[in-house]
Order: sequence, then C-alpha cells, then structure tokens
Amino acid sequence: MFQVWVLGCSSATPAFGRHLSAQVVEHHQHLMLIDCGEGTQFQMNRYRLRLHRLDVVFVSHMHGDHVFGLPGLLTSLSMLGRNKPLHLVGPVGIKQWLESTFSASYSTLLYPIIYTELEPVDSPQQVYETSHLVVECFPLYHRVPCFGYRFAEKPKKRKLMIHLVRQANIPKEYFHLVKQGHSFYLEDNWIDAQQFLGAPDPSFSYAYCSDTRYAPEIVPFITDTTLLYHEATFLSTLQNNATATAHSTAAEAAQMALQANVAQLLIGHFSARYPDLKAHLAEAQQIFPATELAMEGKCYAIALNITSEPEDQAITDLPID
Amino acid sequence: MFQVWVLGCSSATPAFGRHLSAQVVEHHQHLMLIDCGEGTQFQMNRYRLRLHRLDVVFVSHMHGDHVFGLPGLLTSLSMLGRNKPLHLVGPVGIKQWLESTFSASYSTLLYPIIYTELEPVDSPQQVYETSHLVVECFPLYHRVPCFGYRFAEKPKKRKLMIHLVRQANIPKEYFHLVKQGHSFYLEDNWIDAQQFLGAPDPSFSYAYCSDTRYAPEIVPFITDTTLLYHEATFLSTLQNNATATAHSTAAEAAQMALQANVAQLLIGHFSARYPDLKAHLAEAQQIFPATELAMEGKCYAIALNITSEPEDQAITDLPID
Repeated sequence: MFQVWVLGCSSATPAFGRHLSAQVVEHHQHLMLIDCGEGTQFQMNRYRLRLHRLDVVFVSHMHGDHVFGLPGLLTSLSMLGRNKPLHLVGPVGIKQWLESTFSASYSTLLYPIIYTELEPVDSPQQVYETSHLVVECFPLYHRVPCFGYRFAEKPKKRKLMIHLVRQANIPKEYFHLVKQGHSFYLEDNWIDAQQFLGAPDPSFSYAYCSDTRYAPEIVPFITDTTLLYHEATFLSTLQNNATATAHSTAAEAAQMALQANVAQLLIGHFSARYPDLKAHLAEAQQIFPATELAMEGKCYAIALNITSEPEDQAITDLPID
Repeated sequence: MFQVWVLGCSSATPAFGRHLSAQVVEHHQHLMLIDCGEGTQFQMNRYRLRLHRLDVVFVSHMHGDHVFGLPGLLTSLSMLGRNKPLHLVGPVGIKQWLESTFSASYSTLLYPIIYTELEPVDSPQQVYETSHLVVECFPLYHRVPCFGYRFAEKPKKRKLMIHLVRQANIPKEYFHLVKQGHSFYLEDNWIDAQQFLGAPDPSFSYAYCSDTRYAPEIVPFITDTTLLYHEATFLSTLQNNATATAHSTAAEAAQMALQANVAQLLIGHFSARYPDLKAHLAEAQQIFPATELAMEGKCYAIALNITSEPEDQAITDLPID
C-alpha cells in the first residue's frame, strides 16, 4: 500500500473549513508526515491516522502554516506514551525553535527526536530510507529556504512464475528459495532460480512541491514521478501575486507536471481568497488532464493502473521478506 | 451582553472531539480570549467569533495545551489585515517565546502587541480595563506559574425612574440630563436629578480558574462571582492523580464554588481518559447543584435571572453613554 492522505490544503490561514498544510504518506506499515500546520494532530485523529504510527516528519520550510502544529503534535506523542525515536527532517533552525518552544512550555518529551537539519541544496539528496523506500529532498524556490521531498519505492523483487516451477516439478517447500533467487541441486538437477523469476512489479513514487514559485529547474528532480503534488496557490488571473510571493498558479503547477512527465498531478495550498476551487481544477486540467484537487480527508493512491500478473495464491504462506 | 464562549474543554491532548483550552469572553462590543490551545483560530471561525474583534488575550500559564494556538492566531490576525494593537497578558517569558517563534517562522506582524508580562502574585492585581469592565489576575497553584482571571463589570449607572419624571412634568428633552445625574433649574424649579434615579442594574462577574490544584486560599479572590469556571480534570476516584499533577477533581471544583458563594459553576479541562462527562457533572452537582459542563461551542450567560425594572421605551432614543 502506497498512498497519501491530504490533511490540509489551505495556504497561510485557514479558510472555508480548509486546514493548513499537512499530508501523511503511508507505505507498507510506515506513516510519514509532510509538513505540520496548526491542527494537524486533530486532523490525524479525525481521519483515524494513529499518531503513534508516525515514524518521521518532513518539513518543507519554516513558515507558520507549515510548522505551527509541530509543538502540539510532538508533545501529544509524548503524553500518549511514545518512547520510540521520531525522525524529523527539516530546514536548519527547526531544532532550535522546537527546543526553545519545549523549554518555554515546560515540555519534556519522553522519546528522542532524531533531527536531520537541511542546509539549502541544489540537487537531490537522500534524507531518509526504509527497507522499501528512499526519500530525497530537493530544492524549491520560495521566499525562505524550502525543500521538496520525493518518496521513491526501491526496486521490487522479481516475481515467482508459479506455472514454471510447477512445470519443473519443484516441490512446494522449495518455492521460497527460488523466490529469493537461490539456486540449488534437487536430486542431481541444478535448479537455476533466475529461470523461474519474472519481472518485478513497477516501483512508484511521490513528489511534494510546496511552497515554490514556478521552477522548471527542478523538473529533472521529479521526472517520471507517479504522483506529483504541486502547490497552486493562485489562479493565472493573479499571476502577479504568484510571482511576487514566490507561489505558483494552477497553470504553472500543470506545466510542471507536463514537463516532468508525471502520471498524475495533485494541486493544493489554495489561497484563502478562493471559496470555490473548480476554477483551479479547470485551469490545471486544460494543460494537464490527469489533475485532481488535493481535498482534505481524501486518500490518493500512489500507483498506476497496471494489470500485472499476480503471484499464485499458493505462495502467500511463504515467509514475508 | 456579558457571556463566555467555550472553545475547548480538553486537558493536555485533544480527545473524543474535544479541543484544547480556550474561551472567549464577550462584553458589550469587546471580545477577550482566555488561553489559546492549538486550534483556537479554527474554533473561533467555526463559532463565528470574528478574529478581528479580539481586543486582548489573557494567558493562564505556559503549558502547551494553553498556548500552542497563539502563533497561528497572532500571525493570522496580521494576514487578515489587522493594524490596531492587541493586548496580551500572560506569564513572564511569553513575549520571548512568541518573538523567537515569529523570528523562526519569518513572521512579521503588521500590528503591535502590547505585552503585560506577569510575575507571580499572591493577591489580585488589575491587568486590564475597558469602559465597563475591570480584569484582575490572581494566583493559581499549578506545577508552573499560573494565573486566574476575574472579569468584573464596573458599577452601572442608576436608572431613570420614568414615571417620576413624568409626574414632575419634566419635558422629554431634559431626560438625558436627569439620567446622567445633572441637576438644574427648570423655570425657577430646582430639579434634583438624584430624586429621579433608581438603583442601578447589578454588576456581574466571571472568574476563570485553570489549571490549579484545589486551592481554598483563593476563595477570597473569587467570592460572590456570578459565574465561576473551575477546572475539573479528574473524578474523585483519581484524587491521587489530581494531587500529584496539581489539578482538581469535580468535587473540589464544586467545593470551591460553594465556599466562594458563586451563583453558578462551569467545569472543564477534562482529562483525555474520560470519554463521557456525566460522572463529572453528577459529582460536582452533589456538592454544588448549579453546575454545568463547559461544552464546546456553547455560550454561557454571565448574569443572574433578576427581574429588574426596565427603563421606559421613551428614553431609548437618548444618546448612548
């Protein structure tokens, strides 16, 4: 399972029931938070994303609408009994601010935060890794130091072609050896595992770009991403505002998706001046049809609709690797 | 109009849809916020309490569940165009924390905050005043420096006894002079204004006590208050927890109301361990029947049901004083 929950899609201030920037990326058993505007802990509760399942928080930049939910979320984790470490990746300065906030509020956390503080970069750098996923930061261009994040699945294992192992009369108890690519002798016959393994499932990826001006220079860093989230604070009718505040329009977000050859685009971070978002969607879809609005409480699959050959039911009892 | 809106009644962490401590006292045209847990700006929007109407914020203490909503609320005020000053009354240290937070988040407020930082007190001290109201802080006894606040209406003007001025054949255009207590000659007759003025309407008051252990030493500071809000984090079955954490039980809150001879009691700041609050209400009402639960989104009148003589309709056209 690889998906992203949108918890807030408002820019700067809450408006029309829209909350501030926060998303939860779910991959296998991992919950990873991106940005943490005020109210994020309430939104996680609301959508039943258990706080204690969080492994890591990625922060794009230090503007309040992206970080003011952190003190509450981090202290709640402690009060809810967390003792395992939490990773926190964000711009230089985030540690000092959080520690001064904990000190001012007499907060003592009962779990460690492992900080990765980022200096401005000009190309992607790996900042986090799980057994199945790599996360890179890359530069965004806003009024203050700002980072995008790209979550990319590692190459998956080749799949066992069950009809071939059956044809070869390999007993069931050897399937897991073959699946893991181990070759072996079976009663004087050399079983070459590679012959029984097909292509792996494709690996998918998610890129998060908020906040940023229209920045074609980052296209190489997000090329071929499965799902791109790109901010679309304004409509093109307010291009001047977008340029002046280093934000993007819906059309610019769509241009980025087009140039980066992504499969799908999600737009969000809408200015509080827009009660309705239909025009954002229309503006983006005119350039990049596979666009959706990032709506709060909605969960978006990070995958392509590829009909791949499923592994046979018979091998689901094999140990999970 | 003198009333208080409850925006949050949860202690420490949000739970069961309950938000963190925040209340808005409304008096005449003034909106005054007490405490500002995370999410307060959302709650004010939800209950249509316009942010720009806020005149002053009172902070009881620096624990996160009472202050983590401040950075978001204060920066939103600026982004919404505020330029008039905002008063902020709270414990020493609040200014430094807020300024370091504004600095870390690159926030520049376009209006001034007028800080009143409080050193611990052992008796009430006036901290704010409007033309019709005085606000005092008084000591609470929690694990960190903590202040209660009492909002007391100033004595009201004596009321014009309309039937007497009519009996005396005083022309209508002189009513406002009499109402304001000015005596004068009317065609050689000395009109003594005092003879035409009845008793003023009673003045009401509201006291806010959160967070605190059971503290009978503050009873003199809240005696005869119209409406007392007192924290009731625990039930008596967890008296040990209350004592250990310097919080109160529902029974202790009720004891305070009884000893202070208040008219009505509101209990709140409920621990996240209680999904249901009926037992809190029952425990308090057994000692002090005029108790209500502080429920979110509810507005409580700060008044007694006294049937006082209304002024005659004829004088509603007089200038407002």
